[in-house]
Order: sequence, then C-alpha cells, then structure tokens
Amino acid sequence: MWRDLLPVGRHGATGGYRRHAWNSADAECRAWFEEQARARGLACETDRNGNQWAWWGDPQAGDAVVTGSHLDSVPDGGAYDGPLGVVSAFAAVDALRERGVRPRRPLAVVNFGDEEGARFGVACVGSRLTAGVLTPDQARALTDADGVRLGDAMERAGRDPDAIGHDAERLARIGAFVELHIEQGRALGDREVGVASAIWPHGRWRFDFHGEANHAGTTRLADRHDPMLTYAAAVLAAREQAAATGSLATFGRVAVEPNGTNAIASLVRGWLDSRAPDQAALDATVQAVRRAAEEQGDRDGVRVLLTRESVTPVVDFDAALRDRLAAAITAATGREVPALPTGAGHDAGILSAAVPTAMLFVRNPTGVSHSPHEAAEEADCLAGAAALTDVLEELACR
Amino acid sequence: MWRDLLPVGRHGATGGYRRHAWNSADAECRAWFEEQARARGLACETDRNGNQWAWWGDPQAGDAVVTGSHLDSVPDGGAYDGPLGVVSAFAAVDALRERGVRPRRPLAVVNFGDEEGARFGVACVGSRLTAGVLTPDQARALTDADGVRLGDAMERAGRDPDAIGHDAERLARIGAFVELHIEQGRALGDREVGVASAIWPHGRWRFDFHGEANHAGTTRLADRHDPMLTYAAAVLAAREQAAATGSLATFGRVAVEPNGTNAIASLVRGWLDSRAPDQAALDATVQAVRRAAEEQGDRDGVRVLLTRESVTPVVDFDAALRDRLAAAITAATGREVPALPTGAGHDAGILSAAVPTAMLFVRNPTGVSHSPHEAAEEADCLAGAAALTDVLEELACR
Repeated sequence: MWRDLLPVGRHGATGGYRRHAWNSADAECRAWFEEQARARGLACETDRNGNQWAWWGDPQAGDAVVTGSHLDSVPDGGAYDGPLGVVSAFAAVDALRERGVRPRRPLAVVNFGDEEGARFGVACVGSRLTAGVLTPDQARALTDADGVRLGDAMERAGRDPDAIGHDAERLARIGAFVELHIEQGRALGDREVGVASAIWPHGRWRFDFHGEANHAGTTRLADRHDPMLTYAAAVLAAREQAAATGSLATFGRVAVEPNGTNAIASLVRGWLDSRAPDQAALDATVQAVRRAAEEQGDRDGVRVLLTRESVTPVVDFDAALRDRLAAAITAATGREVPALPTGAGHDAGILSAAVPTAMLFVRNPTGVSHSPHEAAEEADCLAGAAALTDVLEELACR
Repeated sequence: MWRDLLPVGRHGATGGYRRHAWNSADAECRAWFEEQARARGLACETDRNGNQWAWWGDPQAGDAVVTGSHLDSVPDGGAYDGPLGVVSAFAAVDALRERGVRPRRPLAVVNFGDEEGARFGVACVGSRLTAGVLTPDQARALTDADGVRLGDAMERAGRDPDAIGHDAERLARIGAFVELHIEQGRALGDREVGVASAIWPHGRWRFDFHGEANHAGTTRLADRHDPMLTYAAAVLAAREQAAATGSLATFGRVAVEPNGTNAIASLVRGWLDSRAPDQAALDATVQAVRRAAEEQGDRDGVRVLLTRESVTPVVDFDAALRDRLAAAITAATGREVPALPTGAGHDAGILSAAVPTAMLFVRNPTGVSHSPHEAAEEADCLAGAAALTDVLEELACR
C-alpha cells in the first residue's frame, strides 16, 4: 500500500513531493485512496469540499469515529507528512479485522483536501470549508502563482465549486476525530509515539517593502530607496525576536520586482511565518518585527505595509479524549505516552472546534520536516499504526 | 524628430520601453534611423554586426569622427537612455549645417545594436562583435527567454548571422568616437553637461547559500540551518562595505528554494552587482561581503559558495580627447565642464580599447535610470546637443 503511493508526485531532481491541490499528482493520490477503499470494501465518497471518506459501517448512523490526515504536500515535501496518517488508518482497519473486532460505531478513513495550502496560499482549505471558518467566496477567490483560481482548478478536476461551504450536517455525524502524523521536531526523544496537547497559535503575515527601482551601477547610495535592505533587517529581526520570546518566526518566501541583477528592487515582498506558546507572545513577536522593519524603512526611505494573511488561535485538544488514547496505548504496550504541543497547523486543529479531536505523533529521528530529507524508522511507523489500532478499538469497538 | 521616435516600443501599461534586439520595436527604431539619414542626405548602411551608420562625407576616407549611441532599451526602460545620443547626433549635424561649417573629416552618426542586452543577456553585442571581444560563435549561441537563438533572430530580421564578427577595417577608419548619454545618477548637480573620465570596473557575483529545508512551525531555532539569515546578513554587509570603500554593491535579484511560507529555505541564491573606482576597491568590496557572509554562515550552519559570473575591468577614456572636448564646450558656453566617472557600461567603453573615445553626459534631475520614470529637462537636452555640436565642430571641421 505504502509502496504504491511512494512514486506519485515525486520530483526526479529534488526527490521531494509536489502533490498540490487539484494538480495531476493530487488526482493520482485520490485515485490511490479510492483503490484502497475499494480493496477493503469501504464505501468511498468525496464530499462537497473535496475531502475523501472511506466508510466502514453506515455513514448516516452518526457518532462516527474518523481517522486520517492528508495526501497533499508542501513544494518538495517529504513522504510522511500527511500520507503516514492515511496509510496508518487503512492499516489500522486491516489490523482491527485481523483482531476479529467489528466497530459498534461507524468508522471512516479521511483524506482532507489541500491541507498544506502550497498552491493557493491558505492551509487546510478542505477542513476549513467544512468547518465554516473559510467562506466559499473567500476560497473561490484564491489564485495560484499562474493566476488560476481555486474554483477553476476544482472545476477542471471535475468538482463543482458552487457546492463548497460549511458542512454542519457532516460534522454532526462525527463523534471523534483522531489524526496520526509524523512528529515535526525532535520532541519525542526515546518514545515511538506521543499524543498532542495543543497546537500553538500561528499565522502568516505579508510584509511589502516599497522602494524605488533604479540602476544598481549608477545610483549613489544616498539616492537609493532599496527595499532589499529593509527586508534583510526584518529577516534578522524575526530571528532575534523569536529567540527573545521563545517563539518561532521565519521568512522562507520572498518575491522581488523587477528581480534584475543590475536593478535596485522597487518592491520586495516577504512572508513571515510565526508561532508561539500563546497569543500574547505571538502578537509581541510580530509587532516587534514590524517595528524593526519600520525603523529600518525610515532609514532606507522604504515604505513598509503589513498584511495579516491568516491567524489560527491556540488549539487545546480534548483532554478527556487525549487521556483515553494515552491510557489505551499504555494498556496495550506497557509504555508511557508523552503529551506534547506542536507549532504546526493540522486539519485536526480546525476540526477541534466542532468535534472531540486528538492527535498521535510518530517519532521523527532527525526532526526534519517539509523537506525531501524527512524520515521515519519503519519500526516507529509500525508502532504508530499499532497505537492507532488500539485507539480505534477502544473508541469504536467497545 | 524626437516626437516620431517617442511612441515606438512603448508599453501601454507601464509607460516603459521594450525595444529589444531584433524585435518589432527595434525594427521600427531602425527604420526611423534610416529615415533621419535620408532626410539629411546622409549615406546609410547597416554593418555586418547590425550597427547602423549614417555618413556625411566619404566612409572610406578614414580618420572619421563618429558620434551616436543606441536605440534599444532595458525592459520597461526610459525614453532617454540611448536615443538621446542618437537624436542629439542628428541634431548636431543640422546645427553644423546651420552654422555653415563643413567637416574636413568624414562624420558619421551611429546606432549600435543590442546595447542593453535585454533579450539575449549580454550587453553591447553590436560593439563587442565589432571590437572582436565577443566571438561570432559566442554571439550565435546566445538565446532569449523563449529559446530563440540570436542568429535566428538576426536572420528573421533580414540579417546574415554568418557575417558577424571582428571588423578591424571599420575600426581603423575611425579617428574619434564621442557618445552623448543621459547621466544615470545625480552627479552633475547644477551643470547641464559633463564629460566622462572613466567607467568603473564592475561585475556580477552569485552567492549560493546552502542550508537545510525544514518546517518553519516545528523546527527549534537551535536545529535550523536557515540560509535566509545568511543572505540577509550578506545584503546588509554589501551596503556597509560599499559605504566604507566608496563603491556600489547591490543585491537586487534573489531566488529561493522551495520558497514556501511555512518552509525554512534549503537554498537562497543572491546576485551581487558591484562597481568601484578601481579594481582594488572592487576586489576589496566583494571579498569583504564574502567574509561577512561566511562568518554568518558559520553561525547559521549554512555553506556559502561564491561564483564570479562576469567582471569588466576599468575603462579610462582618452584624457587628451576628453580635455579637448571640455575646452571646446567651455570656449563656446563660458561654463566649466566637470569630468565624472560612471558605474554603467557603454558602447564607448567597448570601443575605447581600439579608438580614441569620449562621452558627454546630460543632467538627470532625479537620477532615475532604467525605469519609465527616467527624465530630463528639455533645456538640458538642448544644451547637450549644442555641446555635441561644439565638439564635432572642434574635432571634424577645424
């Protein structure tokens, strides 16, 4: 099952994955999902918002136990981020059948669409639409780097963009959601599996540095309005502030106009990704970067505009569900299960406002994530799938 | 004459010019040149390398005085960079005739082809081929962004790409070359016209900052190898070093992989454009930026690779010719004529190795260059044409 999915959307030169919303690799991943459901006799459906569901039991019965993750990737992402949760979900279905147990509640495997937001810039589009926190108009207005609108991309993939939007009826049929995911740092240490305590509040801010295009070979330093200088100061300020507040703050994406070797830039756009243990620390970090950028902008004759593209508040996962999961795993394995927070957003974080939600983390030995070098030990992945099986048996079969 | 040329190749939305080698706007500019020559009874020819010449007197007589510039532009360039020198040359011919003087040496107006290198990436192709510093094979191998080879573009424009190459015989017939050009900074201050002392040595260096892609939301600061930090430090170091050495050093172009908002970059490429009064200052500037980048790279766990993409040595214009020009202008106007260096490359710089060469600069009130916002006062342009007339009378008619 894992081997079939491995080559899909993998870039020959980088070894990274380019499975982006509604592209051809995404379509192949969706076909793989349908095939896995069919092979297990699970009823497969794609909902109005492009999420795929494979049902064991009656989808309409309510109080369902749902597990899964996403199959799309960041640009040149790794093999595990997302797919490990979907593959483990199907593997857990197989393991439950081998154990001879049957769910007393409907059980579903889910593949949420467009979790990474790599193509249209907004993460968790599938779950956000379902939860009603992204409106259909907002979603349809999103465009990719080539100017293709999300609505048109959906239509080309055979979906109806007019049907997207809040799906309260579907959410009401879910009794619990459990997402298994590879850990994205090195916090698990010597444990194979952990449970999530919280997702840090996080967001994306776009800094536009407006300067003046000019000739790099003839314009005196004193006559320049060079936005690259202001951008550089903001990059260094972000790191400094993150260290000072115990947060994370990263510029990983930049766009320059006209981007010519012998031209002083007229415009530099830089995107700040920031995450912090609480909202106050997050706000303090972003405001400190803004102040540093504006101060440098005053010196450079560069105007700084800040746009908040998205902010996700802190998510505290359901404590009772979390403890029940940890207890079930400990009962089966004899191992303690640590609870840890994460700085990464997940569909589980979006759903947690509407549905009792929990996450399992599988150890990441190097901590590398969103990279072709992301890795996991096979033994840890098997331990994760076994833990998910224990959890589903506890939740759905007793 | 100026008004006829003004709309050619101007882009409606940006107001900038897109006259690029052998495109349709370039063809219109060439037709305009032929019409100007015909209207004045000057014999017009296009040489093997695509440069246009309009002759007053016998082209074969030798010891010719040649003046002119280029009609092509950078992408979205201004109206003056190049055309001002060609228009002023024709205006000077008219003015000499009005003064009732006749040249005792052949006098030619020239339009050098492909000075800006906007389409094929190499500047001054027409003059470099003529001077033999660009070989026919090198030139024919150049391709534009659509993959069209320079040879094919010439052929479509009715030229023979097999005929290009060193034209020593033509250069030997030139006794002096004078190029009038709009100033590209604000160094002239309260003077309308100046003469060039030198073209600074200049070059392009590519810095590759190799880090490690990772998740911006989960990777601890201590576990990061973030090349954006190293790049930012290099950008600020370049400005600092330029100020310290009286040079120019600019990062205006950058490429990031994977360039995702929530991904720590794996690779940042930044191009340094640097120019300095002499080679030692240029070398010192680039090496200081390299040292600063490497020191920061050691702290960030980022590897810095430096590639020299091109370097053009200093051009010192013919001092005797320069002084003779300045004296002629001062004699006619009573105004001192400042001599100033420039950081920009010109056809005059290419020809100076083979022919006594000088440049006149016309004041640029804002200093803006390579931009639709480039501007010049009409009075300054007229003063420039008058100065060129004085110079040509001094050189060719006495």
